[in-house]
Amino acid sequence: MKYLFHNILGTFLINEDKKSAKLLSKSDLAKHKDVHELPKEKISVALTILNDTKYFDEFYTKNKEITEQGIKESVNEDHLIIQAISNFDELDRTINLLTKRVREWYSLYYPELAHNVEKHDHFIELVLSKTKSQLAKQYGNAMGADLGKKDVEQIIAVANQVKGLMQLREHHLTYLEKTMTTYCPNLVELGGVTIAAKLVQLGRSLKRLALLPASTILLLGAEKALFRHLKTGAKSPKHGIIHEHQLIQQVSKDLKGKAARQLADKLSLCARLDFFKGEFKAKEYKKELERKLL
Amino acid sequence: MKYLFHNILGTFLINEDKKSAKLLSKSDLAKHKDVHELPKEKISVALTILNDTKYFDEFYTKNKEITEQGIKESVNEDHLIIQAISNFDELDRTINLLTKRVREWYSLYYPELAHNVEKHDHFIELVLSKTKSQLAKQYGNAMGADLGKKDVEQIIAVANQVKGLMQLREHHLTYLEKTMTTYCPNLVELGGVTIAAKLVQLGRSLKRLALLPASTILLLGAEKALFRHLKTGAKSPKHGIIHEHQLIQQVSKDLKGKAARQLADKLSLCARLDFFKGEFKAKEYKKELERKLL
Repeated sequence: MKYLFHNILGTFLINEDKKSAKLLSKSDLAKHKDVHELPKEKISVALTILNDTKYFDEFYTKNKEITEQGIKESVNEDHLIIQAISNFDELDRTINLLTKRVREWYSLYYPELAHNVEKHDHFIELVLSKTKSQLAKQYGNAMGADLGKKDVEQIIAVANQVKGLMQLREHHLTYLEKTMTTYCPNLVELGGVTIAAKLVQLGRSLKRLALLPASTILLLGAEKALFRHLKTGAKSPKHGIIHEHQLIQQVSKDLKGKAARQLADKLSLCARLDFFKGEFKAKEYKKELERKLL
Repeated sequence: MKYLFHNILGTFLINEDKKSAKLLSKSDLAKHKDVHELPKEKISVALTILNDTKYFDEFYTKNKEITEQGIKESVNEDHLIIQAISNFDELDRTINLLTKRVREWYSLYYPELAHNVEKHDHFIELVLSKTKSQLAKQYGNAMGADLGKKDVEQIIAVANQVKGLMQLREHHLTYLEKTMTTYCPNLVELGGVTIAAKLVQLGRSLKRLALLPASTILLLGAEKALFRHLKTGAKSPKHGIIHEHQLIQQVSKDLKGKAARQLADKLSLCARLDFFKGEFKAKEYKKELERKLL
């Protein structure tokens, strides 16, 4: 008798009479009895055929193939979003660090600029586009040392890299927006690109995010404060990453807690709509929140 | 009578008869008696002329000018070396961080590469110069996901920035070598560029480094371990930053302490020779150390 036996490797055709087994490809699934139709005692007898070492190589190869395919298919938008937003954060820190270095270094040469221009990107832009004498017309010139050309070149080279990193950061943002608008349109519409991406990152995947209760989403990104609260009885955090949302920023201080809870509720709904491929409702939610809170 | 009075602002010509004073420029220093030739009681009477508020604006302007000039002149090679080596360190950390990110991100697409290529710069070079199918010929291809073009572009963009940062780091090194070969030839010859620069950075200036005892130079960069030793009685550190010197790296473990002390001695001499504009002796020192230690 021939029986079919299915497991993770595929479907085996077990030939009881010849005491042999064969791994079938999907195309040649013939009409045979399933091994499970045998009485229980007989199943294990039939399956001992698979214990023959001659099959082990084949099993190994097939198993490896399946695993590799599984790994290949396990990569989805979640991973890409998480990588991009993580790198966005790292770039942020790096840009800050290097800009501070350029400020300090350039101040040996022309201290008036770092003093007068506060915005990092504007500062870098000026260092790259103007010479000291051009800048002196606007900001005056008194204290900087007269550095040699090769000394200034080093500073300019650093500023150039910082500019590149700033562009890369923007590039990431555009990419995230594009990716997320197809992958989780509701979440990105209501939360904005960075907050939506950080929620996916903190939730570890859209799926897990969709399954989290709204009260957890409210506190994502405030884990440190939350565990401090649980451990030492310090004040409980009122909101996590969604604190950065412009809606929360706009309401008055004593409304922030309430606003954050309502926003978390809606964001949770958005994540669920996106994960289960529901309709696009984020715009309505947004209007509703604005009506209630502002 | 007219008298000269010198202070930090310059030389004043005090006219006792007219009860007036005048700040002289260097060029018109006339032959007048110095105010200090007066008897003590009379000096203070003569100087009260300077108390007149009508001079205050002039004093303020002159004082500001001197201060600004002082600031301008206070910038020297020490500052430039310290900025460059500090940025070199920061770039090192940044490159490491971002390369690890590229490795992780690229591994979604083609994990075999990060697995097979250990050297960071080689890895980045391959990501930038070869496509997945080109790489697959060498390293095989099994598990990576088939990412879209725009997804891969993001990773390549990060790798590109990393490459730029690596080039900047090299650029800093060349610059440091050039600057230090004129500023402190002995130190850079014996210590090598990075160690010499780090010694200047840790000593805060070549002057201060030249005045430090060799035993302090030995421990520069090991402050944390030193203070832990002083505070808790933990093992005392045997060497600081000079530990990275190739001479110390080459000797056997139980000779390292002795080698580090001898190297610190010679580096201290080098710093002194350089600061006091002495001869170029570093090559001799180097040979002497190699003879004794290797």
